[in-house]
Amino acid sequence: MSKDANTSGKKWVFIGFGSITKATLGLLVSARTIELSSAVVIAPQIEQHQPFVDLGVSFIDVALTPENLGCVLCDVVRQGDFIVNLSVNVSSADLIRFAHAHGALYLDTCIEPWVGTYNEPSLSTSQRSNYALRDQLLSLKSELGPGPTAVVTHGANPGLVSHFVKSALLQLAAKLDVSVPDGQEGVAWGELAMALNVKVIHIAERDTQRSSRIKTDDEFVNTWSVDGFVSEAGQPAELGWGSHEKTWPPFAHHHLFGSNSAIYLERPGASVSVKTWTPNGGPCIGLLITHNEAISLPDFLTVKVGETLLYRPTVYYAYHPCDDALLSVHEYVGRGWRLQNTKRIMNDEIAPGGVDALGVLLMGHALNAYWYGSILSIDEARQIAPFNTATSLQVATGVYSGIIWAIENPDRGIVEPEQMDHQRVLEIALPFLGSLQGIQTNWTPLDTINALFHKPEGELCPWQFEHFTAV
Amino acid sequence: MSKDANTSGKKWVFIGFGSITKATLGLLVSARTIELSSAVVIAPQIEQHQPFVDLGVSFIDVALTPENLGCVLCDVVRQGDFIVNLSVNVSSADLIRFAHAHGALYLDTCIEPWVGTYNEPSLSTSQRSNYALRDQLLSLKSELGPGPTAVVTHGANPGLVSHFVKSALLQLAAKLDVSVPDGQEGVAWGELAMALNVKVIHIAERDTQRSSRIKTDDEFVNTWSVDGFVSEAGQPAELGWGSHEKTWPPFAHHHLFGSNSAIYLERPGASVSVKTWTPNGGPCIGLLITHNEAISLPDFLTVKVGETLLYRPTVYYAYHPCDDALLSVHEYVGRGWRLQNTKRIMNDEIAPGGVDALGVLLMGHALNAYWYGSILSIDEARQIAPFNTATSLQVATGVYSGIIWAIENPDRGIVEPEQMDHQRVLEIALPFLGSLQGIQTNWTPLDTINALFHKPEGELCPWQFEHFTAV
Repeated sequence: MSKDANTSGKKWVFIGFGSITKATLGLLVSARTIELSSAVVIAPQIEQHQPFVDLGVSFIDVALTPENLGCVLCDVVRQGDFIVNLSVNVSSADLIRFAHAHGALYLDTCIEPWVGTYNEPSLSTSQRSNYALRDQLLSLKSELGPGPTAVVTHGANPGLVSHFVKSALLQLAAKLDVSVPDGQEGVAWGELAMALNVKVIHIAERDTQRSSRIKTDDEFVNTWSVDGFVSEAGQPAELGWGSHEKTWPPFAHHHLFGSNSAIYLERPGASVSVKTWTPNGGPCIGLLITHNEAISLPDFLTVKVGETLLYRPTVYYAYHPCDDALLSVHEYVGRGWRLQNTKRIMNDEIAPGGVDALGVLLMGHALNAYWYGSILSIDEARQIAPFNTATSLQVATGVYSGIIWAIENPDRGIVEPEQMDHQRVLEIALPFLGSLQGIQTNWTPLDTINALFHKPEGELCPWQFEHFTAV
Repeated sequence: MSKDANTSGKKWVFIGFGSITKATLGLLVSARTIELSSAVVIAPQIEQHQPFVDLGVSFIDVALTPENLGCVLCDVVRQGDFIVNLSVNVSSADLIRFAHAHGALYLDTCIEPWVGTYNEPSLSTSQRSNYALRDQLLSLKSELGPGPTAVVTHGANPGLVSHFVKSALLQLAAKLDVSVPDGQEGVAWGELAMALNVKVIHIAERDTQRSSRIKTDDEFVNTWSVDGFVSEAGQPAELGWGSHEKTWPPFAHHHLFGSNSAIYLERPGASVSVKTWTPNGGPCIGLLITHNEAISLPDFLTVKVGETLLYRPTVYYAYHPCDDALLSVHEYVGRGWRLQNTKRIMNDEIAPGGVDALGVLLMGHALNAYWYGSILSIDEARQIAPFNTATSLQVATGVYSGIIWAIENPDRGIVEPEQMDHQRVLEIALPFLGSLQGIQTNWTPLDTINALFHKPEGELCPWQFEHFTAV
């Protein structure tokens, strides 16, 4: 932590007390940069909190609503304090407004709406998308202007992965001897990605942590928040739509507002499978779960001359959750998208040897494909910080590094990960991510197509979206 | 067993030594109707056979090929012996020709082609289908005419499920007070199904047996033959196409030969998900795996006047394999349809409490939907017969009951399950199937649709195929 980041006398107000709040508190214990006696947790249904009470954390047992948010927070938050929103169902926009008005810093891992938005049948699919939530945030950024830093969407992904992309682009430039173009604020990242001919970027994650306790019927098991995963899995699949794409996907639509960098499918992400590749196992099938980075990254990397689009990569999250979560999603969808009666976030029962490989897979360039990210085992995670799985520690590391960066840069207003200094953030994050590795692969989606059923003819661009969705 | 079924002095020649041969031998030990010293197993790669040697079984370690089949079998098979083909990759047609010529009885659980047919890229999808294999068998039946009984496709499914359908139709007729129409040979089954207004029949199976040994990376785990499952999962999805269907499915094609009762999708079954319902857990997602019953049953139940189609139900297999197999299929497809390096057929490591519910789900009639079939737990299976899981015991019971029926009816030529006496077969099978239950449900596929993404309008027939495939 930088000497500039003065944390003494500040209060840490955590909204929500799910697995990521616990994981972040666990990481803070290990990082020893924040006194846990300065931490306050505001959440409904506070359970399993005694270990944190013992560490000095205070708890306020209340569900924030649009009506009580100002009242509850006014009693707690003072100028210079830090609001860390790790809830589901508490509006990021309303919390940011409050933080802005009261001179508090802010960070979240997802642009959350108030409860019910994801499932509101009167909203269109476009209105229920992350694209719409981000668009509202960008409007709020214009409206509020400069002010205390509010870092949005800064967990592992969205969050760290945007820094991984910048790192990977620089690594590729070095390997391929491509010169790095200058932009207004340092590197011209879009121009660099274009010069490298990066056509597709996956956030390619595979979680091989497995439970030694067998998943039962009617139970949703995961390595992180069940509610968080179910929320995003039920949102429409969304992806940044690259300039190289030739075939419009089934069920795809443009939004009728905003930058138009991303599109959505009229399908929930949990039902859209895509081929991807990660270092722990090679080719696999991921779910095309919507995430802010699938919208902010392609927007950030777009190169235009006037209104003419010169370049944009296709970007999306291809998520192979842990096996127990895969089974849980399968059961959940089969039950008609009705959540199982029992939820379980694995922890002590995770068998040794499991790994969460969370990285970015840059494809289409002269090295074919290049994965860069964190390979973290459950065994390493257990050594690094209490109250964590490999997955939660990656998210908590995003939260922690974002908090420290915000303290070091306290007057930046609303920022997305792409507007942050990737080198500094990764420097803070590095001790907690296991090994950060860059790995080249010759894999393309055509390698894992079933050739008995798909017989594409002629000269093929393997990087078209249609090949990633074919079986 | 009937007094007519004389088994003394006969030889039992099993082709193949996979999980179902072992399971059938285990069942024969318990049923005590066949001397295991009369059993000969012909198979390549014979392993784990000492317990069966101890029971008196003989082994011939050879892989049958088109070239050596006659030579090998001539030394072993005598008139009146029984050839039980439980192999993959040994041609049913060639074995039936041999049995016919040598006065031997015959049974298989699947119309197998010689090795390579399922994956032969020069064959069209239609030619790789079960529809084509069955069509060849029907031609052979015409060619050979009367002779020693050869029961084709008589395991659990295909096999027992055709008898379940007849039973369920009679039960529905009784419950709904519908009179049972007479046909040439007893009941006019197609007319009965039409009178009951049965629109869709699923072979609806859910296997909840789970391994206490965690599936590892690069391992295919199942409760029965991995090779058998992988074979059928890679064949095209096939289904009997009902007369009530209004919307032609994506990727669907008619065959250009045969009865036209069934169609196929230009997609491997392992990649086609369908909603279904079983008693152990209610609604769930199954895989549309091709099976002979999805072709023979709709053909058998078709009602025509001249060339005009009056009635046919939509029929297909909706299979929820055990969780470990679901994960294995997911990994297998993700690896590009390349089989994992380790295969494991679970047995002793299956945790108590798991159940295989294998039945038929008749839908669209005045009771909405009615499931009838075998609900068999691993614990019951372990008490009934050694060397079995709940799944393998259901298959072995189909094999065993088919064998006994064939001995009792030794001169029927080639027969499919639909041509057999369902009451007699189920009488033989009953002691080994756990509980045979008929259960009504109000479930329809529209109940488990994601209403945020699918907003069908107007008066709906819930039984259209498109609703079963929607998510």
